[in-house]
Amino acid sequence: MVHLESDYNNGAHDAVLRHLIDTNAERTQSYGDDRFSQQARQLIRDACQAPRAEVYFLAGGTQTNATMIDCTLQPYEGVLCAETAHINVHEAGAVEFTGHKVIPLPHREGKLAADDVRRWLEAYCADDTAEHMVRPGMVYLTFPTELGTLYSADELTALHSVCRQYGLLLYVDGARLAYGLAASADVTLPFLAQTADLFYIGGTKCGALCGEAVVFPQGHVPSHMLSRIKRHGSLLAKSRVVGVQFEALFLGGLYFTIGREAVRQAMQLRRLFVDELGYQPYIDSPTNQQFYVIPNADLDRLRRHVGFEVWCPVDAAHTACRFVTSWATTDDELRRLQALKHPS
Amino acid sequence: MVHLESDYNNGAHDAVLRHLIDTNAERTQSYGDDRFSQQARQLIRDACQAPRAEVYFLAGGTQTNATMIDCTLQPYEGVLCAETAHINVHEAGAVEFTGHKVIPLPHREGKLAADDVRRWLEAYCADDTAEHMVRPGMVYLTFPTELGTLYSADELTALHSVCRQYGLLLYVDGARLAYGLAASADVTLPFLAQTADLFYIGGTKCGALCGEAVVFPQGHVPSHMLSRIKRHGSLLAKSRVVGVQFEALFLGGLYFTIGREAVRQAMQLRRLFVDELGYQPYIDSPTNQQFYVIPNADLDRLRRHVGFEVWCPVDAAHTACRFVTSWATTDDELRRLQALKHPS
Amino acid sequence: MVHLESDYNNGAHDAVLRHLIDTNAERTQSYGDDRFSQQARQLIRDACQAPRAEVYFLAGGTQTNATMIDCTLQPYEGVLCAETAHINVHEAGAVEFTGHKVIPLPHREGKLAADDVRRWLEAYCADDTAEHMVRPGMVYLTFPTELGTLYSADELTALHSVCRQYGLLLYVDGARLAYGLAASADVTLPFLAQTADLFYIGGTKCGALCGEAVVFPQGHVPSHMLSRIKRHGSLLAKSRVVGVQFEALFLGGLYFTIGREAVRQAMQLRRLFVDELGYQPYIDSPTNQQFYVIPNADLDRLRRHVGFEVWCPVDAAHTACRFVTSWATTDDELRRLQALKHPS
Amino acid sequence: MVHLESDYNNGAHDAVLRHLIDTNAERTQSYGDDRFSQQARQLIRDACQAPRAEVYFLAGGTQTNATMIDCTLQPYEGVLCAETAHINVHEAGAVEFTGHKVIPLPHREGKLAADDVRRWLEAYCADDTAEHMVRPGMVYLTFPTELGTLYSADELTALHSVCRQYGLLLYVDGARLAYGLAASADVTLPFLAQTADLFYIGGTKCGALCGEAVVFPQGHVPSHMLSRIKRHGSLLAKSRVVGVQFEALFLGGLYFTIGREAVRQAMQLRRLFVDELGYQPYIDSPTNQQFYVIPNADLDRLRRHVGFEVWCPVDAAHTACRFVTSWATTDDELRRLQALKHPS
Repeated sequence: MVHLESDYNNGAHDAVLRHLIDTNAERTQSYGDDRFSQQARQLIRDACQAPRAEVYFLAGGTQTNATMIDCTLQPYEGVLCAETAHINVHEAGAVEFTGHKVIPLPHREGKLAADDVRRWLEAYCADDTAEHMVRPGMVYLTFPTELGTLYSADELTALHSVCRQYGLLLYVDGARLAYGLAASADVTLPFLAQTADLFYIGGTKCGALCGEAVVFPQGHVPSHMLSRIKRHGSLLAKSRVVGVQFEALFLGGLYFTIGREAVRQAMQLRRLFVDELGYQPYIDSPTNQQFYVIPNADLDRLRRHVGFEVWCPVDAAHTACRFVTSWATTDDELRRLQALKHPS
Repeated sequence: MVHLESDYNNGAHDAVLRHLIDTNAERTQSYGDDRFSQQARQLIRDACQAPRAEVYFLAGGTQTNATMIDCTLQPYEGVLCAETAHINVHEAGAVEFTGHKVIPLPHREGKLAADDVRRWLEAYCADDTAEHMVRPGMVYLTFPTELGTLYSADELTALHSVCRQYGLLLYVDGARLAYGLAASADVTLPFLAQTADLFYIGGTKCGALCGEAVVFPQGHVPSHMLSRIKRHGSLLAKSRVVGVQFEALFLGGLYFTIGREAVRQAMQLRRLFVDELGYQPYIDSPTNQQFYVIPNADLDRLRRHVGFEVWCPVDAAHTACRFVTSWATTDDELRRLQALKHPS
Repeated sequence: MVHLESDYNNGAHDAVLRHLIDTNAERTQSYGDDRFSQQARQLIRDACQAPRAEVYFLAGGTQTNATMIDCTLQPYEGVLCAETAHINVHEAGAVEFTGHKVIPLPHREGKLAADDVRRWLEAYCADDTAEHMVRPGMVYLTFPTELGTLYSADELTALHSVCRQYGLLLYVDGARLAYGLAASADVTLPFLAQTADLFYIGGTKCGALCGEAVVFPQGHVPSHMLSRIKRHGSLLAKSRVVGVQFEALFLGGLYFTIGREAVRQAMQLRRLFVDELGYQPYIDSPTNQQFYVIPNADLDRLRRHVGFEVWCPVDAAHTACRFVTSWATTDDELRRLQALKHPS
Repeated sequence: MVHLESDYNNGAHDAVLRHLIDTNAERTQSYGDDRFSQQARQLIRDACQAPRAEVYFLAGGTQTNATMIDCTLQPYEGVLCAETAHINVHEAGAVEFTGHKVIPLPHREGKLAADDVRRWLEAYCADDTAEHMVRPGMVYLTFPTELGTLYSADELTALHSVCRQYGLLLYVDGARLAYGLAASADVTLPFLAQTADLFYIGGTKCGALCGEAVVFPQGHVPSHMLSRIKRHGSLLAKSRVVGVQFEALFLGGLYFTIGREAVRQAMQLRRLFVDELGYQPYIDSPTNQQFYVIPNADLDRLRRHVGFEVWCPVDAAHTACRFVTSWATTDDELRRLQALKHPS
């Protein structure tokens, strides 16, 4: 059985685990002042080429989205996103819990188009009743998206430009950032740091046991950020836990290696499923989340060999299924999947 | 100048004002225990043919929606509505402020279709990740809608039936209920009381200075409702203010008279605009909100005669405009509008 | 039976009601843009000698407190108040509903002492863990207090000075402001406007059917205030309702006359209860709320003549009771209370 | 330099770390369905002798308190606690952020007395205005307290009994539960499971890298708990991280060993500070948090040898300081502290 259900069905990358072991005996400060968090922050600043960046470490993705959206928006502001966005669909209302409206716009392969955002904002601004509506305060996007797709540098620049024009923050949810950076032709961490007002570098799905690193590239941070984060229950007392892991992830570029490996294997997977097994892609994803249209008649046989997630029905006879590689996927696992080519 | 901008550009209906005057000297209990609120509750129970109904009086519409949605939903539940619904568009996020997601569905002339709701619920229930999503807890609709349209009794019954099947509350926002009841062929107050789990009878737009009456027809009220309402800042100390007005509105059926008069005048208005002036209706509204497609070239001339609200652009040369009658609209005002037939 | 249970057991002052009648036929703008609200705002600016003041009209007291505290504080800030403060005791958690901590300090006859506030702030600032605590953002006080007592001008100045030094807002809840101004030796509306960052002028308990006027004397108002207020469900569509009433209250100084009359009658009441009936004051209140220590044996007889509120037990044989005069209390009522001097 | 600043200045207990290493390669389910979380839950049920207990794993303490208090209270309910309670002082308003009032009562050496709670509840229930107040829904206590003190079994039983009588939940914050259980004469985990409605077993401060285990001993869990937790941003995708650690902590009673060792060393510390160095205890704590009154003149010398936390000033010449042992404190460290006996 090969496990491709998700990129969080694993433990930590060996190098991350090793760093946890190596540093375990040391005594440190807490609440973010520990030596490891400080070093990790510097490594991230360097990797982003953003020397003034402020970096915060939180435990998980939904927590990070809800905390950061609430901390950076005015109370009366809402957040624009694709209707398929994680915050709109799969966070059980965590953003609304903090009092902010999530405003869904149509998606194009999981992505927001700058033109759609601009048109929406033009209509909002032209509306005589705008003061009775939720003000747009932020554009939220995921890189890669929930469908595995990627914004090009041009697309991000266009979104950045709309945000600047209308005074909105651009926030990038990078839960799977390692895989996005590895697959992108032109989006790099420094590019992201120049383009987004804030973003997070996902750890949980990219090699860490847990943890996400929020980056404010220009260092423009809301007042009393520590109190704000604690008030959301998102401040870790033993902050070193995430600090140590991000130090490991950004020492020697491990984070990028992790991304590249998983994407390489996702492409192998695609060759198997599309070229050799003859399945159609449900969507053309260049990253570690792969979606194929599986005949319902094949589902049971598939399930005996590989763990995956049913995504949605396509038609009466076909189902879209998601197969996810990660840093933990091994070449041996992919070899074993070759068995799918033979009747069983 | 004839004022058709809204149905809240006026004071109170004479009979309501007179009752405020007649009762002014009396001393009463507070926080809903006053004699007038008690009498008004009984009159409303009678009009609804719902002897066990519980009735609460609040000050305004957005307050009523946010308070009642929050009081009746579980914290993790959201509310389904048409994308054009007041709570989704024009309440500045008051429902999200209370922590609940507003889930917009496509509208058909401002209305939710039971089939669309059912399909959405089926998909939700079939989704393996449903526990990570906001649970649907309520269907919200307006009667009449924001576009002046009306649900038929059959349409409401179908929505009621979907709600029963999936365990959702059916909530009807009756900010303009008087006008809806007056124009409907088959929806009556007793019918509404049998079909909705809760609804409110609008006062502010239907003859009162201020105030809305929330009705729980079956008497199924959340625990400690008074504390809940007060916690939302929605409990009036001097509750008689709204009690007296609703007593007046439901004595001798004034509320229904008010509705009929405004609808009669809306139909006169339609004859003038459509039959005599040759404008197209933007939407076919049988109630006091009328929408016509006005050539942009006519807008200025129109503005010299009549106050109205620009609704939205239709095309480069036409604009949809809203004209609203109310209990306060006079026959004389409609007569003066005849001037529109002559060039000026 | 004479009704002294509360100052909201009545309708509206005759002059307020008359103005509602006189203006009823006029058509107006909404959401605060109506002519009456504009005129009332100017009258209030004049009475406050605060030409740049911004004024907002809301429906009730708890709504006003919760909305304004939430709108002016940062999300992570709390509000300091006397432990007896209305927001701490009798608002069902409306402030906490908006996410802010109410921080109670000991009271002295219902009042906060500037020295107590200063000591608390010094300790907070000296605390190494302050970032883990709720930041103090505001001092809340009531004028008059819940016990009928009054701050002197010196006491308010001292509180103002502590607030300035530590960067806190000073907010005065004036639900019964008319009675406080009438009884104070040295606190005037212009003084209040110079001393508080924001305060509200109570209407509901001081002559209006409903409504409170929030004043930002220096005009320093949070961004997008209309959206903020609407989001709290506190924006009245038919804003004229409160605007007309405050115009009446501030035309020719009616608000001050109302206060003086009720205080004059409260002093008459005190003569009767203390000098003639021999009861002890529970607290020395110069305003319209009077508190006396009543032997339990007398309670039933008292109840046959006068409506009042049981405040709290004093000892096994005595109960503190509250008797409240208002603009609606008549000389005839006070005459009828003379019957208490004769056994019955 | 010996580090006694806190019990979260360390990594993980060796056995916990080893279990993370040993299980790292395995692929698991997520969101609490992983094998390790299931096993850890069973071990905790066994240790609690509570076969029907429901157990949830969260990341940190403040998060756990805010999430669980909000999930188990009605929206209009508040939580009673000692004024020194963590939720009242050091969580930056995280409970109020969820809309609930924290109601502080006087403390006795950091503890709530059942009699004080009862008296408060009697007064609340006797109050005619109770519906205008926040309803008490829960008693919150810490075991051990913020001052290191412990409730006896009798004291907990008395609190349980008050809670039963008045319909309140009893919630025990066990951030340092290991140390409390080790030092208590009569409170055991099964006793706690019989006495509290819910409690959490602290991991972060008791041997884990991160994580807390919430126990509902009777299995009475609010509906849709997973959605509730996720809505608070408190649901870990890679739940195994905490599951593995709690499995290690409860295999072979490690959790109890950890507690005993730290308490043994705290008692050694006390002998040194009180018997040998002659300092006065600030409070008589039997657990791993020790508080001594240090002459200000000694502070600098002390700081050269040992890390500690300044607690509060005692008088002009003395300061209360906190010294904390943990599972990570070594005998060698305590030996090195003997140097304090010699002038330096």
